[in-house]
Amino acid sequence: MPLVPAAIVLHYAAPEAHVWGFALAGFAIVPLAGWMGKATEHLADRTGEGIGGLLNASFGNMAEIIIAIMALREGLTEIVKASLTGSIIGNALLILGVSMLGGGLKFKVQKYNPAGARTRATQLTLAAIALVIPAVYHQLAGAYGGELREGALSLEISALLIVVYGLALVFSLHTHTRYFTREAAEAGRLEASHAAWSLRRSLIVLIGATAVVSWLAEILVSSVEPAAEALGMTEVFVGVIVIAIVGNAAEHSTAILMALQDRMDLALGIAIGSATQIALFAAPVLVFLSYAIGPEPMDLVFTPAEVVAIGLCVLIVGQVAEDGESNWLEGVQLLAVYLILALMFYFLP
Amino acid sequence: MPLVPAAIVLHYAAPEAHVWGFALAGFAIVPLAGWMGKATEHLADRTGEGIGGLLNASFGNMAEIIIAIMALREGLTEIVKASLTGSIIGNALLILGVSMLGGGLKFKVQKYNPAGARTRATQLTLAAIALVIPAVYHQLAGAYGGELREGALSLEISALLIVVYGLALVFSLHTHTRYFTREAAEAGRLEASHAAWSLRRSLIVLIGATAVVSWLAEILVSSVEPAAEALGMTEVFVGVIVIAIVGNAAEHSTAILMALQDRMDLALGIAIGSATQIALFAAPVLVFLSYAIGPEPMDLVFTPAEVVAIGLCVLIVGQVAEDGESNWLEGVQLLAVYLILALMFYFLP
Amino acid sequence: MPLVPAAIVLHYAAPEAHVWGFALAGFAIVPLAGWMGKATEHLADRTGEGIGGLLNASFGNMAEIIIAIMALREGLTEIVKASLTGSIIGNALLILGVSMLGGGLKFKVQKYNPAGARTRATQLTLAAIALVIPAVYHQLAGAYGGELREGALSLEISALLIVVYGLALVFSLHTHTRYFTREAAEAGRLEASHAAWSLRRSLIVLIGATAVVSWLAEILVSSVEPAAEALGMTEVFVGVIVIAIVGNAAEHSTAILMALQDRMDLALGIAIGSATQIALFAAPVLVFLSYAIGPEPMDLVFTPAEVVAIGLCVLIVGQVAEDGESNWLEGVQLLAVYLILALMFYFLP
Repeated sequence: MPLVPAAIVLHYAAPEAHVWGFALAGFAIVPLAGWMGKATEHLADRTGEGIGGLLNASFGNMAEIIIAIMALREGLTEIVKASLTGSIIGNALLILGVSMLGGGLKFKVQKYNPAGARTRATQLTLAAIALVIPAVYHQLAGAYGGELREGALSLEISALLIVVYGLALVFSLHTHTRYFTREAAEAGRLEASHAAWSLRRSLIVLIGATAVVSWLAEILVSSVEPAAEALGMTEVFVGVIVIAIVGNAAEHSTAILMALQDRMDLALGIAIGSATQIALFAAPVLVFLSYAIGPEPMDLVFTPAEVVAIGLCVLIVGQVAEDGESNWLEGVQLLAVYLILALMFYFLP
Repeated sequence: MPLVPAAIVLHYAAPEAHVWGFALAGFAIVPLAGWMGKATEHLADRTGEGIGGLLNASFGNMAEIIIAIMALREGLTEIVKASLTGSIIGNALLILGVSMLGGGLKFKVQKYNPAGARTRATQLTLAAIALVIPAVYHQLAGAYGGELREGALSLEISALLIVVYGLALVFSLHTHTRYFTREAAEAGRLEASHAAWSLRRSLIVLIGATAVVSWLAEILVSSVEPAAEALGMTEVFVGVIVIAIVGNAAEHSTAILMALQDRMDLALGIAIGSATQIALFAAPVLVFLSYAIGPEPMDLVFTPAEVVAIGLCVLIVGQVAEDGESNWLEGVQLLAVYLILALMFYFLP
Repeated sequence: MPLVPAAIVLHYAAPEAHVWGFALAGFAIVPLAGWMGKATEHLADRTGEGIGGLLNASFGNMAEIIIAIMALREGLTEIVKASLTGSIIGNALLILGVSMLGGGLKFKVQKYNPAGARTRATQLTLAAIALVIPAVYHQLAGAYGGELREGALSLEISALLIVVYGLALVFSLHTHTRYFTREAAEAGRLEASHAAWSLRRSLIVLIGATAVVSWLAEILVSSVEPAAEALGMTEVFVGVIVIAIVGNAAEHSTAILMALQDRMDLALGIAIGSATQIALFAAPVLVFLSYAIGPEPMDLVFTPAEVVAIGLCVLIVGQVAEDGESNWLEGVQLLAVYLILALMFYFLP
C-alpha cells in the first residue's frame, strides 16, 4: 500500500529513474488489483447470480485491461499484444503450474471435474486458433494482405470471439451450471467466510481502486521503453513476462490458495478461465477500443514467437488439465514449459 | 428436382450466365447426392454385411468424388485439393458442429461410445499428417524437390493411405465391430424403417443418379472459374467452402437428423467418418486417377493455408469428439473454428 | 556374436568396404546392447530399489549414447541430432506401433494404467517442446541469433531438462510409485524368472559389453558418411532411420515380447519411456559432453524436418497412448505415421 504514493511521488520527482518507477508502479498495482477483484466479487454477490457471474467473469482481468488501455493510448500495440500473450501463458502455465505443484506437494492426487475442465481447455484451444489465424494470414498473404484487410479480418474474428464468449457465459451460468456446480458451491463457501460488503462500499472500492490502478498503469506504461532498455531486455520480453506477472498477481495468489485447500476446480477455473477470458474477451475488446482511443488501430497479428508460445501452451495444457486429476509433476511440467518459453523470449532480439 | 433440367437447359441456352449456371448445378446436385446415398445403402442391404459395409463406406462420398473427377479432367488440380480440404473441414467442423449444436439444444448432454470416437479421431489425425507431409516436403526441399520427387512421394503416401483405409474397414466391419455396435444396431433400426429396394431398383437409381450428377458436375466445374471471378471470390474459397458444402449436403442433413434423435454415434460416424474417408480414400484415389484421366498428374502438396486449416481442424476435433459426451457449446466451438477458417480463406488472395 | 570379430576384422582388413563395415558393426551392436541392458538390470537388482531404478532408467539407452559420443568426437553433430530424432520417433512410433499391432493381433483389447500412460505422454510432449524451441529461435532470430546465443539457449534448456528428468524419476520411483505399480510388480515377476547375477558378474558383463560396443560404434560412425553415399541415402536419413533402429533394437525385442504377454504397461514404459529418456536425459547430456569431447559444441537446433517429425509423433502418440486401451489398429496407425515420416526423410535432400 505505501508503494502507491511512493510510485507516484517518484514518477514526478525523478522522472528519469525509469527502472525504479517501473518497479514501484508494478508492485503497487498488485494489491490494488486484488482489491478490484474483491470488490467485483462483493458486487456480484449483491446483483444476483446471472449478472454476478457476468461481472465476475468480465471484470476479473480488469487490471490487465487497464494497463493495456494505457498502452493503447500511447500507441504501444506491440506491447499490448505481448502482454496479452503473456497473460495467456502466465495464467495457463505459470499460475496453473504453481497451483498444481503447491497443491500436489500437500496432497498426493487432487481431483477435479473433468467435464468442466475439458470445456475450459477447449475454449482455450478455440481462443488460440482465433488469435493465431491473423498471424497465419499475415504470413501467407504477404504484401497483398495489407493493413486494411488484416484489420478487417481482426475485427471480424474479434466480433466472433465476443459472441462465443457470451455463449460460453450462458453455458456456464445458465444451461450447464451442473458442470461447474462443485466449484460454484465451493466458491459460495469461500464467499460466506468473509462478511459481505454493502453495495455502496463495493462500488466505492471498485471505482477508487480502478482510478488508482489507471494512474499507476499510465506510469508503468510510460516507463516500459526506457526501463526495458536500461535493463537490457526487449520490450516484448517485458510485455510477455514482467507486465503479465504484474497484471495477474492477484489471480496468482488466489489460485494457489485454492490449490492448497484442495479446491482444484476453483484453481483451474481461475487459471485457465483467466487465460481464456483474456483471449476471448480482453483481446477483442481492446481491438475495438483501439479504433476509439488509440493513435492507431490494433490488429490481432501476433508475432511468430507469440504464436508458437500460445500454440505450445494450449498443447500441454490440453494434455495436463483434462483428465480430472493433478499431481506435483504436472505442475513441474507446466512450469518447465513456461520457463522454456520465457528463455526463448529473453534471447529473442 | 426441377432444378436438374433447369441447370442443364441454362448451361446450353445461356452459357455466359456462369453464376446462375454454377448455382443451379450446385443446388441440383444436392438431392441427387441424397438419392445416390440411399441407393448405395439399399444395395448394401442386399449384398451382405461385409461387402455392404465396404460399399457404404467407399461410395458414401461419391458425389464429391465425381465433382473432383470432372475438375481433374479439366486440369483444375488446385480446385480439387481445395475441395478435398473443404470436405474435411466441412464434415468435421461444420456438419459435426451443427449436429452437436442442434442435438445439444434439444438434449442437455448427449452420450456416445468414446472408444469408437477415439478410433475415428485418431484416423483423422493420421489422415491429416499424411496430407500435410507433402506440403512440408515441398517447403523444405525447395527447388531440389521438383515435381517428379513430389509426385513420387504423393504416390507412395497415397498407396499407404489406401492400405490403412482397408485395414480400418477390416477393424470396424470385422474384428472390432463391438466398438461400433450400438451405432450399427441403430443404423439397422434406421434401415428397417423404410421398405428395402430391390437389387435392380437400387442399381438403376444408383447408375441414373450417378450419370446425372456427372453431367451436373461437369457444368459446375466448367463454370467455377468465371463464377468465382464474377462473385469476387477466389477459386480456392469457392473450392474450400462452396463446392464442399454442395458435395456434402446429403451427409449434412442425415447427420443433423441423427443428432436430433439423440443418436450421436451415428452423427459422429457420418461427420468424422466422411472427413476421414475423404482423406484416406478419395484423396489417394484421385491422385492415382489423375495419372489416367487428367491432363496433368495431381500431387498431395496442399497450400500452406490448407495445411493450417486441416491441422487446426484435427486439433479441435480431437479435443471435442473423444470424451464420449457432447453439448451445445461444443457445437458452437466447432462452428466458430469453421467460421474463422472460412474468413481466412475469404480474405486470402 | 560371431559378427563382432567379423566387423572388427573387416574394418581393418578392408577399410574401403564401408557399406559392409557399417552393416556388420550395426548388426553386431544389437545383441551387445541387449547384454548391456541385462547387466544393468541385474546390477539394479543388487543396489536396492532407488539406485536400481536410477541405473535402469539412466543406462537403458547406453548403446545409443555411446554411438552418439563417438559421432560427437568426430564432430558429426548433425548425425547425432538425427539419431536423437530417430530414437524418439523410433521408440514412440515404430516400437510402440509394432508392440500394439503384435499384442493386438493376439488379444482383442489390451488394457494399461491410463494415469501412468498420461504422465509419460505429457513428459514426451514437454520434451518435444524443449527440443523444438531452439529451432524456432533459430528461425526467428535469424542472423541475430548467432551460434553463441543459440549455444547459451541450448545449454540452459539442457540444464532445465535434466532437472525435470530428475524430478520425474523422484515421481515415479518415490512419490507416485502407485501410478506404475502394476508395471513394477510385473517387472519383478519378469526378473524373478531368471536367476540373479552376482554383482561382480554384472559389472564385468556391463564393462566388457560397453567396451566392445564403443569399439563397434567407432567403426559404425567412421563409415556412416561413405556408406550413406554408396547407398544413395542422405546422412540424415541414415541417422534418423538406420542408426536409430540399430541403437534401439534391444528395446524393440523386449517391448514386443511384453506386448505379446499382454503386459502393455511394460511395453509402453519401454517404448515411450525410452523416447522420453532420449529427449530429457541423453540429449542434454550430449550437449554438455560436446563441450568436453567434441571438436565443436553441439546445440539443440534441430532441422525443420526433425522438428516436424517430433511434433507429429507427439501429436499421434498423445492421442493413441493415453486412453488406457490399445488394439491392433492403433499399432497400424503409429506405424503408418512412422512410414510417412521415413518417406519424407528418404526423399529430402
